[in-house]
Amino acid sequence: MHLGVCYYPEQWDEFRWQEDAAQMAALGLTRVRIGEFAWSRIEPETGRFEWAWLDRAIETLHKAGLGIILGTPTATPPKWLVDAHPDILAKDSNCRVRGFGSRRHYCFSSQTYRREATRMVTALAERYGKHPAIVMWQTDNEYGCHNTTLSYSAEAALAFRNWLTRHYNSVETLNSAWGNVFWSQSYRSFDEIDLPNLTVTEANPSHILDFRRFSSDQVISFNTMQIDIIRAHAPNTDITHNMMGFVTDFDHHTLGADLDLATWDSYPLGFTEQFWFTESEKIKYARQGHPDIAAFHHDLYRGCSNGRWGVMEQQPGPVNWAAYNPSPLPGMVRLWTLEAFAHGAELVSYFRWRQAPFAQEQMHAGLQRPDGSADVACAEIAEAAGDLEHLAGAGKPLSSVALVFSYEAQWMIQTQPQGKNFDYLQLVFEFYTALRKHGLDVDIVAPDADLNHYKMLVIPSLPILGNEIMATLENFGGPVLIGPRTGSKTRDFQMPDDLPPGPLQELMPFRVLRVESLRPGLLLHGAGFEINRWFEHIESVSLPEIALDNGCGICFKQAQYRYLAGWPDDALLAQVIASMAGEADIAIMSVPETVRVRRRGDLIFLFNYGTEPVDVSDVVMGGTIIVGKALIVPAGVCVLKL
Amino acid sequence: MHLGVCYYPEQWDEFRWQEDAAQMAALGLTRVRIGEFAWSRIEPETGRFEWAWLDRAIETLHKAGLGIILGTPTATPPKWLVDAHPDILAKDSNCRVRGFGSRRHYCFSSQTYRREATRMVTALAERYGKHPAIVMWQTDNEYGCHNTTLSYSAEAALAFRNWLTRHYNSVETLNSAWGNVFWSQSYRSFDEIDLPNLTVTEANPSHILDFRRFSSDQVISFNTMQIDIIRAHAPNTDITHNMMGFVTDFDHHTLGADLDLATWDSYPLGFTEQFWFTESEKIKYARQGHPDIAAFHHDLYRGCSNGRWGVMEQQPGPVNWAAYNPSPLPGMVRLWTLEAFAHGAELVSYFRWRQAPFAQEQMHAGLQRPDGSADVACAEIAEAAGDLEHLAGAGKPLSSVALVFSYEAQWMIQTQPQGKNFDYLQLVFEFYTALRKHGLDVDIVAPDADLNHYKMLVIPSLPILGNEIMATLENFGGPVLIGPRTGSKTRDFQMPDDLPPGPLQELMPFRVLRVESLRPGLLLHGAGFEINRWFEHIESVSLPEIALDNGCGICFKQAQYRYLAGWPDDALLAQVIASMAGEADIAIMSVPETVRVRRRGDLIFLFNYGTEPVDVSDVVMGGTIIVGKALIVPAGVCVLKL
Amino acid sequence: MHLGVCYYPEQWDEFRWQEDAAQMAALGLTRVRIGEFAWSRIEPETGRFEWAWLDRAIETLHKAGLGIILGTPTATPPKWLVDAHPDILAKDSNCRVRGFGSRRHYCFSSQTYRREATRMVTALAERYGKHPAIVMWQTDNEYGCHNTTLSYSAEAALAFRNWLTRHYNSVETLNSAWGNVFWSQSYRSFDEIDLPNLTVTEANPSHILDFRRFSSDQVISFNTMQIDIIRAHAPNTDITHNMMGFVTDFDHHTLGADLDLATWDSYPLGFTEQFWFTESEKIKYARQGHPDIAAFHHDLYRGCSNGRWGVMEQQPGPVNWAAYNPSPLPGMVRLWTLEAFAHGAELVSYFRWRQAPFAQEQMHAGLQRPDGSADVACAEIAEAAGDLEHLAGAGKPLSSVALVFSYEAQWMIQTQPQGKNFDYLQLVFEFYTALRKHGLDVDIVAPDADLNHYKMLVIPSLPILGNEIMATLENFGGPVLIGPRTGSKTRDFQMPDDLPPGPLQELMPFRVLRVESLRPGLLLHGAGFEINRWFEHIESVSLPEIALDNGCGICFKQAQYRYLAGWPDDALLAQVIASMAGEADIAIMSVPETVRVRRRGDLIFLFNYGTEPVDVSDVVMGGTIIVGKALIVPAGVCVLKL
Repeated sequence: MHLGVCYYPEQWDEFRWQEDAAQMAALGLTRVRIGEFAWSRIEPETGRFEWAWLDRAIETLHKAGLGIILGTPTATPPKWLVDAHPDILAKDSNCRVRGFGSRRHYCFSSQTYRREATRMVTALAERYGKHPAIVMWQTDNEYGCHNTTLSYSAEAALAFRNWLTRHYNSVETLNSAWGNVFWSQSYRSFDEIDLPNLTVTEANPSHILDFRRFSSDQVISFNTMQIDIIRAHAPNTDITHNMMGFVTDFDHHTLGADLDLATWDSYPLGFTEQFWFTESEKIKYARQGHPDIAAFHHDLYRGCSNGRWGVMEQQPGPVNWAAYNPSPLPGMVRLWTLEAFAHGAELVSYFRWRQAPFAQEQMHAGLQRPDGSADVACAEIAEAAGDLEHLAGAGKPLSSVALVFSYEAQWMIQTQPQGKNFDYLQLVFEFYTALRKHGLDVDIVAPDADLNHYKMLVIPSLPILGNEIMATLENFGGPVLIGPRTGSKTRDFQMPDDLPPGPLQELMPFRVLRVESLRPGLLLHGAGFEINRWFEHIESVSLPEIALDNGCGICFKQAQYRYLAGWPDDALLAQVIASMAGEADIAIMSVPETVRVRRRGDLIFLFNYGTEPVDVSDVVMGGTIIVGKALIVPAGVCVLKL
Repeated sequence: MHLGVCYYPEQWDEFRWQEDAAQMAALGLTRVRIGEFAWSRIEPETGRFEWAWLDRAIETLHKAGLGIILGTPTATPPKWLVDAHPDILAKDSNCRVRGFGSRRHYCFSSQTYRREATRMVTALAERYGKHPAIVMWQTDNEYGCHNTTLSYSAEAALAFRNWLTRHYNSVETLNSAWGNVFWSQSYRSFDEIDLPNLTVTEANPSHILDFRRFSSDQVISFNTMQIDIIRAHAPNTDITHNMMGFVTDFDHHTLGADLDLATWDSYPLGFTEQFWFTESEKIKYARQGHPDIAAFHHDLYRGCSNGRWGVMEQQPGPVNWAAYNPSPLPGMVRLWTLEAFAHGAELVSYFRWRQAPFAQEQMHAGLQRPDGSADVACAEIAEAAGDLEHLAGAGKPLSSVALVFSYEAQWMIQTQPQGKNFDYLQLVFEFYTALRKHGLDVDIVAPDADLNHYKMLVIPSLPILGNEIMATLENFGGPVLIGPRTGSKTRDFQMPDDLPPGPLQELMPFRVLRVESLRPGLLLHGAGFEINRWFEHIESVSLPEIALDNGCGICFKQAQYRYLAGWPDDALLAQVIASMAGEADIAIMSVPETVRVRRRGDLIFLFNYGTEPVDVSDVVMGGTIIVGKALIVPAGVCVLKL
Repeated sequence: MHLGVCYYPEQWDEFRWQEDAAQMAALGLTRVRIGEFAWSRIEPETGRFEWAWLDRAIETLHKAGLGIILGTPTATPPKWLVDAHPDILAKDSNCRVRGFGSRRHYCFSSQTYRREATRMVTALAERYGKHPAIVMWQTDNEYGCHNTTLSYSAEAALAFRNWLTRHYNSVETLNSAWGNVFWSQSYRSFDEIDLPNLTVTEANPSHILDFRRFSSDQVISFNTMQIDIIRAHAPNTDITHNMMGFVTDFDHHTLGADLDLATWDSYPLGFTEQFWFTESEKIKYARQGHPDIAAFHHDLYRGCSNGRWGVMEQQPGPVNWAAYNPSPLPGMVRLWTLEAFAHGAELVSYFRWRQAPFAQEQMHAGLQRPDGSADVACAEIAEAAGDLEHLAGAGKPLSSVALVFSYEAQWMIQTQPQGKNFDYLQLVFEFYTALRKHGLDVDIVAPDADLNHYKMLVIPSLPILGNEIMATLENFGGPVLIGPRTGSKTRDFQMPDDLPPGPLQELMPFRVLRVESLRPGLLLHGAGFEINRWFEHIESVSLPEIALDNGCGICFKQAQYRYLAGWPDDALLAQVIASMAGEADIAIMSVPETVRVRRRGDLIFLFNYGTEPVDVSDVVMGGTIIVGKALIVPAGVCVLKL
């Protein structure tokens, strides 16, 4: 695994470059990412390119032995370009122009911007495509960040109509698919179709879902455009994109399929603060991050690009963008680094080399403080580099459990939550956590992935059951867990003719007669567990495997398949997972609350996300400790070799 | 009482119509509402009318013995019409166009839309005005739903200026009425007057109130326009409009005066979830609805149209539009049906026949599931139909108590709440609940209604005391309860010259010297009760009937009149109501918390809104139980004959 | 000290003026403010001036012995002016026009409005500049109220570009100062620079800060324009402006420097309700206001205009504009009046004479009710007038402690809070409260004030350490307390080259290596105190004076300087203040929770803000009570003469 860092030579006096490069190398880094926000320095005005400084920067870094990851600067079109072509700008759902003055202000549907981005990426690829220093290309930066996938511009409307025309061919087909007879919503031509914002009450969910699919496709095609250019000039160099955490507005599986490897930007503290975790979890894990956030994304993005993946930006200290920005517990930077390795990363690159004393991110820590002194992450990175040497030659991270995640499912349930606390992403995350608490190794996979080699399959929810996943289910031999709302919709966002779970009825003979969404505090009780948020009334010829106190079934089992007819709590998930692991003949363990486990080859990694030492002697029997101790200190790591 | 159902033949293949009609009739239904969203199927493009399908649908339903309620489809102007005339669209208070893509997107002030609606309603009335199948007409659908009464379009501004010109004649009169000398707000002509949105701080309350009155008038005149057309072609057919629950943006009393009967759309679970009820009430009544919501609207809308009324849409299962959508407790559909009967309904029509598998309401339950199987409401409706046969020939629902509700009061207090927790609608509802907890039968009436035949009069609040209500008060012989802020404003939204309670001083010699609004937790204590939200400092020559611990009067009594100088809690209301009932010689009872009572003729109905059985043997002495038992099951009904 | 009142002759029939004036004089009032909202009555249409009524009003009031404070009516441009010049209107941050219909709808950058305001103020000054009745002029009314300092209009953008051009001269300098190399934000010319709203994610903080400085300057120059006109026509008459409470969007120190005296509008109950105080504080002080709000502003605005100041609007009863508007505890109007005197006010003027029965403020109490009867404040004012006679000849209010407040600091921390609960104004207020709880007399001063005569200096936070404050610090002999984030930024909003605390390192040899913002509940513990919200990791050669339980330093002392490396709680502040007072040889006292103390000359004032009597016998030894008693009643005042 390479260690690397993000660097912005354009932000520093040139005389510092050489020493910076030398210090990077001395720290054990072998990769450096540059260039991804430098458009205005590369092309200060239209058509005038300034390559000399970039040539020198690349040369200086290369000479220090660093392999360069070169980013295309399309996330930040300069002001002169925006002023010349205001149609580049995106519009938000209130139809306000999203103006210049930060980043990601372009609309993916702007033809002008596609032309300009093509021009810039071509120029960059022509100049550096064959440069020996460049070991990887990165397209753009964090697609979708700052809620930028969806744009409601006039160009987006035009492109959406074209997309619909291509997908439906005739407007009668669209009217039928969307059920536009309802509320006199029928269209006479594709030209009549607006974007689904600013309607009086909610728009047609089929309309919204197609707009979500279209918007995702726009990101993919924008990226493909860049990849095609880069491959033409650098056919043998890896191409990546750095994905964000918990961004789900475009389909990362589809995007990843075009990449050589997927990378992502790992900010566990900020993500803990900004997402659905409870107040007490946010306090408990304020300085460590929730123990499943980094791993969840490792396992998710590993599934996006044939198993090749890395961390392009690793949080090295406090950030500037969350509501509250505490400092990581000492040891966390090393822990995160080793955890990425345990999950099979090729790269962990820290963001950023030196904290910038100016502009938006001046409060974002780096490996160096603004004055060039080493910030606290440096020592942890040096220690991690030593650990990694010790662990060289480790085998592959193989997983016994496949967990299905679908971006389309996320869009569907966001479009029609039915209960305002039904968050698909959270549901998947809670299933993931439950599996990890039993010490299981998980791959997070797309619904159309090949899953035959797994021992256990978990589908927290999948409203649309396509042909691929149905074939997978039919052929899968191990235990399968299927969660609520699965099979509840057709591809057109209609209810299936034979009611939910639709095609799943071929495998499990039951029907969902009615669903309920439940406000917080409105609970359904079972023996040792509670159902909250969601409950489905099931009609089934067979008795449930698990029932509520009121007799209603909550878990149904047919052959190797189990269906959960509600949102389970930890206790119910634990019960079901234990049964399945037994059936699959997978060993499970009871992992202490703050500890997480991951296997790679014959190594077992244990990570302590807690603020107290934890003794794991009882957890893992056998094996030899090769890193750390059985009494794992806070933010500590213990590695065993079997 | 007729039972009916809402049906959308345009949404189903024609071959299903006949069986649907037969099943309706078999279930005991005798009415079916159709047509109200079908504009684009009746007129798929401008001027091309397709009547054949509707002719056949009416014929099919009629043949099955169903009387048809035909709705005008003006709530959903089709896209081709909106595109041809974008001035049809309303604007919200931020001046954003409220676009096509759901429903109710038209502006009541659009002259174009009035012309187009006239054209459509005329065409419909010409074709079906004399059709023997049509037993009732419904204008439009749920005026005001989705916050659509107020529009801030250019056409609304023009119409508002015309309205002001008609009402004030001279701009000097308006300047004086509004007090425009304040903050240099004087106008030189009506043309200078804008709508009261997007001001820097709050607009002049007189300005806002007139805009609210104008906006209400626009709804009324739009409806009158439709009624005039329909009456011309169907002079002997009942005309109704289906009003919503807790929608108060237009004056339902005025609208109702134009109708033959008022109907409303009863969704007790959604209304409980979406309104001011506490967290614990929302959980406690999640599956039953708050026990006073349905009855409140029954008693309110019965007062809107000379006592003739019905339920046009009755919730039959979970809905799709509340934040959380649980399933009704088994029995509730029957309970709601019988309760409507107890309150004197002519019609209970369920929404809808078959759950649509597509578009916005695909998660809204119907009597049938999307696959045509009977959903759980069917059995309850069949049982209710049996009960109704048993109860045939019941007398009229006579009430001893009149409770005054004023839409204008609602607009005034919304315009100038003075304390942000002062919600007029909630205040009225709490008085209503207090009366019902004593087993009293209530009519909710307009301030200008004839009230002489009641034994007791309750006015929770009435800022403007007009001539009619003053005459009523002077002549009313029984006890009268008058709540805070009554008489506090003139019709121009000014304070009265002689201070509040203004003209009430003719009957009760006191003045309000000062008012206080109180944040939650800032309470004033009395003997066994507390005042919250609002308190008035009273100057009075006589001693208060009830005082606070600090000596300030809270209830003043003069002859038959009582005035409450604050927002009362349950305990204070109970004390006052008990005194009044004694004076009026009306029997009261102490009703168990989850039970409600309603008399109709010589029948007494008891409804258990709780989740536990309740024994009402002690509550009602005498009489013979003709439906149910004295131990009323959850969601159960007990009917006694005296 | 003069007592006065705000009066609107244009709002009342002329026959009432004479009696009003007589009643004012009889109550002990000697000042009356008029005119500040009367534009449309002075100039009902363009160029037609109606002076006669104003002449007569002035004459009538003057004859009764009242000195007149005449306000320029520029806060309320009339509708005819706005319609003729729509460019007068401001725009909000969403680019919505802030329309006519209330007040303060003008944009400070509108050249048209500056021309029109010049025309009006000139006309007014020409007519009344030499009038013997006019004892003071007030410019406009409550600049910044209703969030009106910032405007995002096209004219504001133009003026901002000009402002930037003047300040930076070359765009390269600006690019460097703002760090625009970051995210390709570089500009090629000043013309390319937009206002910092509607960006995709946060704008560059340097960009925002300059916009805040510019916006403040626009207020100042608008005011200077008025002052220049008035001084030209009334060279010897005091000029003031009535500032608001807790409004910080423009620099009141700079504005005050142009005034003869600063005045402010004191609404302690509304301010308690609307700002950051806890629920329990809001309830506890609902009818008294938080005990430090009035004093804080007295001490702040006294520092804005060379020590001359007054209260232009004093709350006399419930107001209309807070979320909840209770009535002041009996006695509070007198208490507030005497407290202003204790802090050295020249004027306390009540708002308003008679409650208007119409328009926006009809629920705002006055000294008279709308019917002309005396409201409860009158008796308290009469009592206060008597007290003041008794206290005549009191010395000056001298303070031992200087507390530094910086408007620029407020803008910086609002721009980049880093933790969402870091509110600079609250931090300063909490330091102020802590000082007052020890019975200390405080002057709140600008960073560039001359502070040599104080015994103790407190700087809660000051991100930019300019030359003046650095010189002050170097020369100051007494103990100095410096709070977190001081010296953390350069004037360009960059981090200092040598890290925070930047230039403070010349006096205190430590560096801030890292900062953390902490969510509520994430606390750091010390001996008897807790740190919340903010913590700084300090590198220092010397040991901390006070450390956390984990050993990290929280208070560092070097010579007379102390630095607090976090947000302190009451206990830590008390500990530090006690130490400093000892070093400065200032006597401190332990003041009961609801009591506040202020010295003026040889008088000691004690105010009881509680609802229970408090015995202060033990608090102040010696002296003779000349007003009140040692057992101070609720809302009572006790004055001792030493």
